[in-house]
Amino acid sequence: MMDFETIVGNVRSKTPLVHNITNYVTVNDCANILLACGGSPIMSDDEGDVEDITSICGGLNINIGTLNRNTIPSMFLAGRKANELGHVTLLDPVGAGASRLRTETAAKLIDEIRFSVIRGNISEIKALAQGASSTKGVDADAADQVNADNVDSVIAFAKAFAQKTGAVIAITGATDLITDGKRVCLIRNGHPMMSRITGTGCMLSAMTTAFAVANPDRLFEAVCTSVIAMGLCGEIAHARLGDMDGNSTYRNYIIDAVYRLTAEQMKDGAKYEMR
Amino acid sequence: MMDFETIVGNVRSKTPLVHNITNYVTVNDCANILLACGGSPIMSDDEGDVEDITSICGGLNINIGTLNRNTIPSMFLAGRKANELGHVTLLDPVGAGASRLRTETAAKLIDEIRFSVIRGNISEIKALAQGASSTKGVDADAADQVNADNVDSVIAFAKAFAQKTGAVIAITGATDLITDGKRVCLIRNGHPMMSRITGTGCMLSAMTTAFAVANPDRLFEAVCTSVIAMGLCGEIAHARLGDMDGNSTYRNYIIDAVYRLTAEQMKDGAKYEMR
Amino acid sequence: MMDFETIVGNVRSKTPLVHNITNYVTVNDCANILLACGGSPIMSDDEGDVEDITSICGGLNINIGTLNRNTIPSMFLAGRKANELGHVTLLDPVGAGASRLRTETAAKLIDEIRFSVIRGNISEIKALAQGASSTKGVDADAADQVNADNVDSVIAFAKAFAQKTGAVIAITGATDLITDGKRVCLIRNGHPMMSRITGTGCMLSAMTTAFAVANPDRLFEAVCTSVIAMGLCGEIAHARLGDMDGNSTYRNYIIDAVYRLTAEQMKDGAKYEMR
Repeated sequence: MMDFETIVGNVRSKTPLVHNITNYVTVNDCANILLACGGSPIMSDDEGDVEDITSICGGLNINIGTLNRNTIPSMFLAGRKANELGHVTLLDPVGAGASRLRTETAAKLIDEIRFSVIRGNISEIKALAQGASSTKGVDADAADQVNADNVDSVIAFAKAFAQKTGAVIAITGATDLITDGKRVCLIRNGHPMMSRITGTGCMLSAMTTAFAVANPDRLFEAVCTSVIAMGLCGEIAHARLGDMDGNSTYRNYIIDAVYRLTAEQMKDGAKYEMR
Repeated sequence: MMDFETIVGNVRSKTPLVHNITNYVTVNDCANILLACGGSPIMSDDEGDVEDITSICGGLNINIGTLNRNTIPSMFLAGRKANELGHVTLLDPVGAGASRLRTETAAKLIDEIRFSVIRGNISEIKALAQGASSTKGVDADAADQVNADNVDSVIAFAKAFAQKTGAVIAITGATDLITDGKRVCLIRNGHPMMSRITGTGCMLSAMTTAFAVANPDRLFEAVCTSVIAMGLCGEIAHARLGDMDGNSTYRNYIIDAVYRLTAEQMKDGAKYEMR
Repeated sequence: MMDFETIVGNVRSKTPLVHNITNYVTVNDCANILLACGGSPIMSDDEGDVEDITSICGGLNINIGTLNRNTIPSMFLAGRKANELGHVTLLDPVGAGASRLRTETAAKLIDEIRFSVIRGNISEIKALAQGASSTKGVDADAADQVNADNVDSVIAFAKAFAQKTGAVIAITGATDLITDGKRVCLIRNGHPMMSRITGTGCMLSAMTTAFAVANPDRLFEAVCTSVIAMGLCGEIAHARLGDMDGNSTYRNYIIDAVYRLTAEQMKDGAKYEMR
């Protein structure tokens, strides 16, 4: 059993400070979910600022959702500094496989920076692990989703990618798959409507960085717990929706659910299996 | 009668992928309203990324709300690529007339890129069609609003601008006016409180791009339907507001209403006339 | 007694247009709170655009939350133009003390631009007034909070900083302290949960600019009234929260409360004392 009480409790009590170099689409939601889970966000993406900022934080969340010529060098600078200081580092390779700049930047980041965690949808992770390309933009290709038929092959490539990169790999979708190269956790929390909100993936990456910072001795469990928490909050929030509510209210309720989340809710609601 | 069932149904069933080069103020709302209506958003604004991204999308939404020296060249690159590929292109000339950079950039975009749709408030469209300047920032000058007295002259200049540019022109405000240079549609849906939310115009532009992508053979009707949908959702959302609700809840309810919108609601609630 | 009726009424009736050069994290909330209070926002941060835009506005709000090499020169250009035109200018030195770039940029802005108002948390203001540095990111150091023991010394340094800069200084936190170098107002409105939302400080700065623009002859009172209004709206919004609501709904309710705020509510709820 995952020790939700300790892991969630550490996030609440330690207020992990997370430096985010992230896209401008979902940045506000990332900041609010970090505050909701018990962390503290700071955003900074200028070459002249990122090293100082990352130095005072506990972890670094790099999200390439709206990467550009100014922020790409900042990602490398901050990543190197975070590595030097032994900080938690997470990469969210938004849209890897959808454009050359995204695929190459993500690949180069993985080459030059040691990431603690790499979190993406299956199309993005495949693009990085296998050179596969996608034409579905920033969403996962339906054909790629983890299911009973392909789960063994997905586990195999995810494990190999974890071993190659030294990172915990988190492939999220209808079924989530987390691996550190040895252990594998399959998670079935969540709700399909989460894909109708922008930024559930980005928010999860930000929150996962905070979970990892607050639980340095159990990185794999911290990542699994964060992914379970996000899925469970998607379920709790969905149950609140009224007849007239849509994806905007749903987004608010998910962040609210993270704010209210307890270890008890997690013990009762977690749907995961170790493989 | 507009065939709302087919037009809205196409958006829901085809999941039109829309590339947005847009401002960082309302970008999250634009992404969520695209998801709400049935589309799929991707944001990308770096010169090295936009051509790849626009190539995998069905339409391009250019919004100059926070234009800058890095994103302006990207707008031209993406626009040319979209033209080359025959994609839907929409221009939202936020603040044209309010600064020289905005007016000139919008004018140059119209010169060099063939737009399927140009959507703005009347002050912005006047600035582009007639060289008029505004001192009201990004909001329309009250003196400019379409009303019974000036409707014929507004129709005349809008038609001429549509003929000149080859674009469907959508002038939105208390009364909306849509024209393809021949047909004219006046729409009276909406609620005055919509002007107390940031980004209703930007959201409409993003959604309209999705409607156009999903209905390539009836561009004019698709634009009219999107404008009616936005106004109607403004009415539906307003009716939900409680005593303590203000513009932030209203924003959420409008996006929620788009998420829930049906062709039946549109048949019952549309207020438009063809001229 | 503060004349809330006149001050709030002026904001509602004059629709002050505020130019914001601000961070991309909380920019949407800043725009919506400006609309909520009765103002009108415009965002523009390119060197080629800011002088035109600031010229048509009544006030300029500079927030360094995600400053970068492109927007820093824009802050100086816009600030000089606003000074030249006698406009209200506000500085929000987000993260001053947390990085060299932030501290130096804020200090240089204060040297070269005459600010009407400088608003920050106590760690930020201390960094600028006394060269103190912080390691708590963008949040105030708990050790710094204004309390009974240190209030006299905080008043002394805030007064000195106001006299040196010629600005009204607003130090906000659990207890807010406003001074123009002579008068001092201590405010005890607000709720601790406000610190669990991103952007309450940024929103307050944007709104304060609007209050100052609409009340040019009573700058100090306008700043105090805006700070009281924000705190009171935090209380009103908190009272609405249900069992499942968290920080995302709270953010919406605060903006909603500003939208609905009346001078009567302020007369009944204001908790301030002049020192």
